[in-house]
Amino acid sequence: MAEVKTRRKRGGGRAGNAERRGSGAIEQMPWNPPINTDRPTEPLTEEGIAAIHDGTMRILEEIGIEILNPEALEVFRASGGCTINGENVRMGRDFVMEQIALAPEEFTITPRNPARAITLGGKHLNFGNVSSPPSYWDMELGRKVTGTREMCANFLKLSQYFNCIHFVGGYPVEPQDIHASIRHLDVLYDKLTLTDKVAHAYCLGRERVEDVMEMVRIAGGHSDEEFEASPKMYSNINSTSPLKHDYPMLDGWMRLARRNQGLVVTPFTLAGAMAPVTMAGAVAQSLAEGLIAVVLAQLIRPGVGCAIGTFTSNVDMKSGAPAFGTPEYMRATQMTGQMARFYKLPMRASGVCAANVPDGQAVWETSNSLWSGVQSGAHMIYHAAGWLEGGLIASPEKFVMDCEILQQIQRYMDPMITATGPDEIATEAVREVGDQGHFFGIQHTQDRYTTAFYQPFLSDWRNFEAWEAAGSVWTAQRAHQVYKDILAEFEAPPMDEAVREELEAFVARRKAEGGAPTDF
Amino acid sequence: MAEVKTRRKRGGGRAGNAERRGSGAIEQMPWNPPINTDRPTEPLTEEGIAAIHDGTMRILEEIGIEILNPEALEVFRASGGCTINGENVRMGRDFVMEQIALAPEEFTITPRNPARAITLGGKHLNFGNVSSPPSYWDMELGRKVTGTREMCANFLKLSQYFNCIHFVGGYPVEPQDIHASIRHLDVLYDKLTLTDKVAHAYCLGRERVEDVMEMVRIAGGHSDEEFEASPKMYSNINSTSPLKHDYPMLDGWMRLARRNQGLVVTPFTLAGAMAPVTMAGAVAQSLAEGLIAVVLAQLIRPGVGCAIGTFTSNVDMKSGAPAFGTPEYMRATQMTGQMARFYKLPMRASGVCAANVPDGQAVWETSNSLWSGVQSGAHMIYHAAGWLEGGLIASPEKFVMDCEILQQIQRYMDPMITATGPDEIATEAVREVGDQGHFFGIQHTQDRYTTAFYQPFLSDWRNFEAWEAAGSVWTAQRAHQVYKDILAEFEAPPMDEAVREELEAFVARRKAEGGAPTDF
Repeated sequence: MAEVKTRRKRGGGRAGNAERRGSGAIEQMPWNPPINTDRPTEPLTEEGIAAIHDGTMRILEEIGIEILNPEALEVFRASGGCTINGENVRMGRDFVMEQIALAPEEFTITPRNPARAITLGGKHLNFGNVSSPPSYWDMELGRKVTGTREMCANFLKLSQYFNCIHFVGGYPVEPQDIHASIRHLDVLYDKLTLTDKVAHAYCLGRERVEDVMEMVRIAGGHSDEEFEASPKMYSNINSTSPLKHDYPMLDGWMRLARRNQGLVVTPFTLAGAMAPVTMAGAVAQSLAEGLIAVVLAQLIRPGVGCAIGTFTSNVDMKSGAPAFGTPEYMRATQMTGQMARFYKLPMRASGVCAANVPDGQAVWETSNSLWSGVQSGAHMIYHAAGWLEGGLIASPEKFVMDCEILQQIQRYMDPMITATGPDEIATEAVREVGDQGHFFGIQHTQDRYTTAFYQPFLSDWRNFEAWEAAGSVWTAQRAHQVYKDILAEFEAPPMDEAVREELEAFVARRKAEGGAPTDF
Repeated sequence: MAEVKTRRKRGGGRAGNAERRGSGAIEQMPWNPPINTDRPTEPLTEEGIAAIHDGTMRILEEIGIEILNPEALEVFRASGGCTINGENVRMGRDFVMEQIALAPEEFTITPRNPARAITLGGKHLNFGNVSSPPSYWDMELGRKVTGTREMCANFLKLSQYFNCIHFVGGYPVEPQDIHASIRHLDVLYDKLTLTDKVAHAYCLGRERVEDVMEMVRIAGGHSDEEFEASPKMYSNINSTSPLKHDYPMLDGWMRLARRNQGLVVTPFTLAGAMAPVTMAGAVAQSLAEGLIAVVLAQLIRPGVGCAIGTFTSNVDMKSGAPAFGTPEYMRATQMTGQMARFYKLPMRASGVCAANVPDGQAVWETSNSLWSGVQSGAHMIYHAAGWLEGGLIASPEKFVMDCEILQQIQRYMDPMITATGPDEIATEAVREVGDQGHFFGIQHTQDRYTTAFYQPFLSDWRNFEAWEAAGSVWTAQRAHQVYKDILAEFEAPPMDEAVREELEAFVARRKAEGGAPTDF
C-alpha cells in the first residue's frame, strides 16, 4: 500500500471550470434528500409484530422504567395514567397508545437556511455526520489522538460541503481543548456559521440546552414565537439501559418539547449486555425505553414531533465488546422499522462499525448498517459518515468514504434507473444497433450519457495498469486527499453580518457568565 | 498500514482444540446454503414488468437473435415456431412462453459428494467462487501476474475449505502455464480431487465439454444413465451482446442439454456499450438473449433445468470502462429478479467490483452486488468470492474477505435472529435484571451466548489500543494470513482410490490424444 500522496485529479477543462466556480475538489451530487421508494425489508410476521408489541407493553405495564427526574415524574403523575413507585413508572398499554397517537407520523425541521429543511416520516431519508467520538484518527497522523476544536470544525466543514449530509448531529468529534463549561457555545458557534443545515443540541443540563436553542433562534433570525411555531433543531437522547432515563437527558427532552423542537430517543440496547441476548427481547426493551419518552413529550406538548431510534446491536460474547453492522444489527434495525410503522412514529437508525481504521471491515460493517437503515424505512440515519471504533474515533477518510456510499444510496433511489417507459425499454435503439457494433455512438445513448449513470467521486474505475501508473493508491489514501482538497477550498455558507454579531455577542456574554456548570 | 505479518490467532484452548481436529485456521460456519426468507426488493410495478416483458418479446419477435451455430439453427427450424433468415432467428411470444414453461422452476445439481447438492429455485441461495480472471494479485507479490495452475489449485482449495462457497465455477484463475489444449483436463482433475462441490464446464468446443462431463461422471462413480438421470454439473454460457450467440457456446449448451445437465445463460449487457444506455432496455435485451437459449434447451430436451443470469451493469461514460456494484447494477439485478419470477426460471447473479485491490472500494462494490443478488431472489451468485478489476484479477485476500461477507449473509438469513417466541421476547429476563446490572450473567444469556450472535473470522472487534498493540493490521493483511493458514492445513476431501485412478487414466489418455483443438 502506497504512502499518502497527491491525488491526480480528473484532468481537463471540467476540473478547471469546477475550480473557477469554487467546487473543484470533487464533482458531487446536488442537495436532494432521497425518497425511499423501496418496500421495507420486513422479517417479522404480523404475529411477530404483535409479540414484540406485547413484550414492549408488558415492560411498561408490569416492570416499569426508572425516571430519574422529579419534574418528569410529576408530569407522569399528573397525567393520571401511570402507576408510580418511587422513581419507577408504569403505565397501561391503552394509555401508551393513546399518548403516542398524538405524535405526528411526519414532521419537518427547518434550519437557518430553509432550503435545507429535512422531513422525518413518510418515505423521507436523511443522513447525518458522525457524532460524539472523543478521539480522532487520520492517515497523516496515523495514530489516535484526542479531539480538538479544529478537528471538530473540519468535520463541520465536511458536513456542510457534502450535499449527501442532510443534517448535523452532535459534535463530530468531542473538542476536548475547550473547557466543558463553554464547549457548547464555541462548537455551536462553529456549527451555525460553518453550516446552514439542521443542528442538534445535547441534553446535558439546562444551560446547554437553553443556550443552543437561543443560538439556533438567533442564527435563523427568528422571534421566540417563530422559533416555536415549528421545529428548527432537534435533540437525541439515550436512555440508560436497562430501563432508566437519567436526569439531564429528560430535562433537555422536556425543554425541547415545551418549545416544539425535534425529539429523538435512542436507547443503546446491546443484546446480551444491557438488554436480553435475544434480538426480539432487545428490540422490545428498546421500544419500551423509547416509547415512555415519547409519552412524556406528548404529555408536555401534545403533537410535538418525536422519532424513535434504534441502536440495538450485539456484543462479542467472547470479550463483551460491542459489535456493529452485524447480521443481528441489521435484523434488529429492520424489526424496529416494522415496529416504528406499527406505532406510526418516525425512525432513526445509524451508520456504524467496530473497525479501527477505514479498511475493508469498516466498509462492510458500515455498509451493512447503512443499508439496513434504508431497508428499515428509517428517516434519519445518524453517524452516516465518519465513524470508527464503535464510535470512539472520528476519521475524515472514513467520512469521505462513507459519503461515497451515501451518494450511491441517493442515486439508487433515483426513479430514473428503474423507469420503463418506451424510451427506456428502447426497442428502437436495439433495432438500430442490431447484432453489429455498439451503443456508444447512437442518438439514444448520446441524449442520455451525461446523466444515465452514477459518477462516483472516490471510486477508481481505471484498469490495474493505469491505477498502478498513477501510484497504486488505495481507497483510504484517495479519501485523505479528497478531504484535504475539500478543506482547502471550503467556503462557509453566507450569514447576515448582524446575525453573526448577535451570535458572537451571545457567546461572549454566556462565556462571561461562566457558561454551563460541569458538575452534572 | 503495516506490512504483512503473522496474524495473532485467538488464543487459548479453543484454537488448540481446533488445530487438533484439523481446522484451526479459522472457526467458520458449517455447510448450510441459506434459505432466503426476505421478500425480494422489487423496483418494478406490474406495469413495469409488463413493459420489460413486451420489450423482450418484441426483440425476439421483430428483431431476432443471430444464432451462429448451424445445428442450433436446425433445431429452431425444426420446431416450426421460428422465422429464420440466414442466421437470424425470430419467434412469437406465445411460442417463447410455451417453451420456457417447460423449464422447471427449481432443479438440483448433485456433485460427487451428494451432501453438497445445491438447489436452484425457490428460496435457495448458493454462492460460488470467482471464475475466469486471466491474472492474479496477492499482497505478498504486490503486483499483477499471469495465472498458473498452482494459483488456480490454491483457489480451488479455498473454494473447498469455505463452507459458504456452495459450488465451484469456472477456473478461479486461468492457468496459463498449461497449454490450452489440455488445460481443461488438468484443472478438472484438480477441481474434482481438491473439491467435492458442484463443478462447471466451459462451453469451449466439443472436446472440452464432453471431457468434463465424462470426468464428472467418473468422479461421481456414475453410469451414463445415472449421470443423465439428474444434473451432476452445469455450464454457464454468455451471449455475444448485442443479439448474438456464438458457435462454441451453443454447441456446449446443446451437449449439456442432451445429457440433462444444469444450464445457465448470462448475457453480459453493459448498458451504453453492448446494450441500451437505459437499464430497462439493457435488461430487456439481456432477457431476450437469455430466453432464446432457454427455448433452444427446451426444444432439445423438454424439462431440462435452465437458469437465467444477469450481468447487466453500466460503463463509465467518461472512459467506457465497465463499472460494477453500482446503483444501476443493483437495480438491474433486482429488476431481473422480478422478471425471472415472471418467467418462473431460476436466476443467477454475481459478486463483482471494478476495484484493483481489496480496499474499501472493493468492499462497497462487492457488498452492493452481493446484497443486490440477495434482494433479487437470485439462486446462484457467481464470483461471490475473490474477484477484482472487473474480473481480470483473482485475489486470495479478496476471496477471504468476501467469504466473511458471505457468512454474514448466511447468518442474516438464520430465522433465529428474528424469532419472537416467549423465550425471545424475554420479558422474564428483563424483569430479572430490572434497572440494575446487566444481562451477561443471567441464565437466559448463559443458555444462549455461544450461539446467539454471529462470530466473524476476519473482523477485528478489539478496541484501537489492543488492535494497535497487535500490529495495526488492516483487513486485507489479516485476510492474507488467513489465506496462508488455510493453505497450510488444507486437506482434500476423500476420494475412492479406484475413482482417482480412473480419472488419472482418463486425463492421461486424453492428453495422449492431444486434448482439445485450440483453433476455435
